Amino acid sequence: MRTAAPTAHTLPTRFLSPADVAELVGQKGLPVCLSEMAHAIEQDFLRWPDFDKTARVAAHSDVGVIELMPIADAHQYAFKYVNGHPGNGQHHLPTVMAFGVLADVATGTPLLVSELTLTTALRTAATSALAARTLARPGSRTMALIGNGAQSEFQALAFQHLVGITQLRVFDVDAAASAKLVRNLANTGLHITVCHSTAHAVQGADIVTTVTADKTNATILTADLLAPGMHINAVGGDCPGKTELHADVLTAARVFVEYEPQTRVEGDLQQMPADFCVTELWRVLSGQATGRQSEADITVFDSVGFALEDYSALRYLARVAEQLDLGTQLPLIPALANPRDLFALVKPTPLAAPTAPAGINTPELV
Amino acid sequence: MRTAAPTAHTLPTRFLSPADVAELVGQKGLPVCLSEMAHAIEQDFLRWPDFDKTARVAAHSDVGVIELMPIADAHQYAFKYVNGHPGNGQHHLPTVMAFGVLADVATGTPLLVSELTLTTALRTAATSALAARTLARPGSRTMALIGNGAQSEFQALAFQHLVGITQLRVFDVDAAASAKLVRNLANTGLHITVCHSTAHAVQGADIVTTVTADKTNATILTADLLAPGMHINAVGGDCPGKTELHADVLTAARVFVEYEPQTRVEGDLQQMPADFCVTELWRVLSGQATGRQSEADITVFDSVGFALEDYSALRYLARVAEQLDLGTQLPLIPALANPRDLFALVKPTPLAAPTAPAGINTPELV
Repeated sequence: MRTAAPTAHTLPTRFLSPADVAELVGQKGLPVCLSEMAHAIEQDFLRWPDFDKTARVAAHSDVGVIELMPIADAHQYAFKYVNGHPGNGQHHLPTVMAFGVLADVATGTPLLVSELTLTTALRTAATSALAARTLARPGSRTMALIGNGAQSEFQALAFQHLVGITQLRVFDVDAAASAKLVRNLANTGLHITVCHSTAHAVQGADIVTTVTADKTNATILTADLLAPGMHINAVGGDCPGKTELHADVLTAARVFVEYEPQTRVEGDLQQMPADFCVTELWRVLSGQATGRQSEADITVFDSVGFALEDYSALRYLARVAEQLDLGTQLPLIPALANPRDLFALVKPTPLAAPTAPAGINTPELV
Repeated sequence: MRTAAPTAHTLPTRFLSPADVAELVGQKGLPVCLSEMAHAIEQDFLRWPDFDKTARVAAHSDVGVIELMPIADAHQYAFKYVNGHPGNGQHHLPTVMAFGVLADVATGTPLLVSELTLTTALRTAATSALAARTLARPGSRTMALIGNGAQSEFQALAFQHLVGITQLRVFDVDAAASAKLVRNLANTGLHITVCHSTAHAVQGADIVTTVTADKTNATILTADLLAPGMHINAVGGDCPGKTELHADVLTAARVFVEYEPQTRVEGDLQQMPADFCVTELWRVLSGQATGRQSEADITVFDSVGFALEDYSALRYLARVAEQLDLGTQLPLIPALANPRDLFALVKPTPLAAPTAPAGINTPELV
């Protein structure tokens, strides 16, 4: 780990910038990262009861939302800061920006501070692919990808490498977004068809991924577009007042969620009555509930993004960054010779207090 | 603002380390910092209804707690990460470690990431002094200071400079802590008496400050130690199962709190029935409620630390750091030429994708 700026007298908190995470992805390869991250998420979902879970804490404004997503097991604590501002494009800013922290439960020490803007796209795609591998029909090869914004390429590659998708049918209300996706995914081996509508895109699709950003109750997908056996990966309906699926789509399907109390408030599920039946994904992964029951089932993964996925991603980044010696040291927490002597940090030096015994008034830092 | 490490291609988030905040305090002077921070907190308390308030989100373990404390008005959002681990001394770590973030509500952009370990001691002392200036008897000169750990010197100096305290009567179960306090406060003009018990320390005190760290229902102060007219600044009882005052002390007093829903759970107030009457400090500051009603009133400020104080402190740090050009730039959020092209961060270079048109596949970063 390189050492930047003044780091003496502080605890060794690792910092990963977007460039550091991009370097990590570059060294490992994006498909390997997505695969290993999906594995990490699956392993943590399999020990679901170990976690102290809470729905995220959201601060809503007219133009967006800022959220904190904490979670902990007995050993490590993680949280993510993330915003969602659909109008950020006009400020030349990403719609979603994020960073997060991994900390030691035994002492509260922050171990890692990392960018999560890029990482959120990675972990969301990895989670989507993990769910689809469990819920979609085996042999699914064609995916419709509705919404071709910041997260779309990550979804495409995760489904290519983890689920076996070879054909993409893409649509965005902004044709420039689709053109960007096509440019970015050239030379990946994916066969891409740019479509002129959602209805066009879903034709023949085994899997439909919706990843749109409007903070409205949009109806991206209606029940008449469904075909038997479809798996729907609904990523963009993720906060109150922001949905993508018509209620009839949910009624027609078996619906799977990450953390039910959160999804009831934030997911497409927010449109449904409180007793509408859903199944948490971890229960399917661990064999406690069935996923798809027949070839003809329509399955929906109503994904909103759960703190556990960020916990898994942060732990993955921490482990790989250590292996690859990436990142810098962030001087975040003071290291004091006497932890009860915080005042040492601001105490005037002996020069300013000439009558004090020499040495005693010097800040004692380790 | 100095620029550390690779910062190109990221938003300009300012970072303040403990050394930066210590430098800020050194340049301004600690009394000025405490006074200006108290003023900032008072100004924000006076516009209390402007804030989207929530009780903090706590993750408890057997040995401590990790908390997130978010708050926002229409313009800025702030949160603090803070732990409380009374046994951290055995690991040579501070009991309380903290950092925080100030962000722009309109876009979600993080503007400032700052250490808050040192700053929490400053803002807590500033808040305590602000409350005492409002609630203690005018002319209060003698303060008992029970608990002589990391926060004690900051409390002492805030009460000296903002309230007019000249005499300190200090006690800690660990005599070394009191000796450290005496060394640290030499040459401040405070007259300090080291006492052998809480009962000894409170003799003749106008104000009693309790700032102990044990995560237990300790009974630091009992009703028989009260004298008419006393103001009690109860700082250390700040999470479920951690109290300092006997219930009879609260019954005998008029009790003031920061944010009632949080203090009912975390403060010494947790011992009292749900209908026990308390007054929020902002209502006294704004003239909507009376504070002390007579010379003989016993007043208690049952302080647990509220997110608004950190919001005020972070805004103060941001303003002064800009004036003094302190801190470094933290490469936290990627700045993308096309905000919808997050994939540009990880896209293989044209070299790895030789058939793509030159230039188009190059990550476009600003």
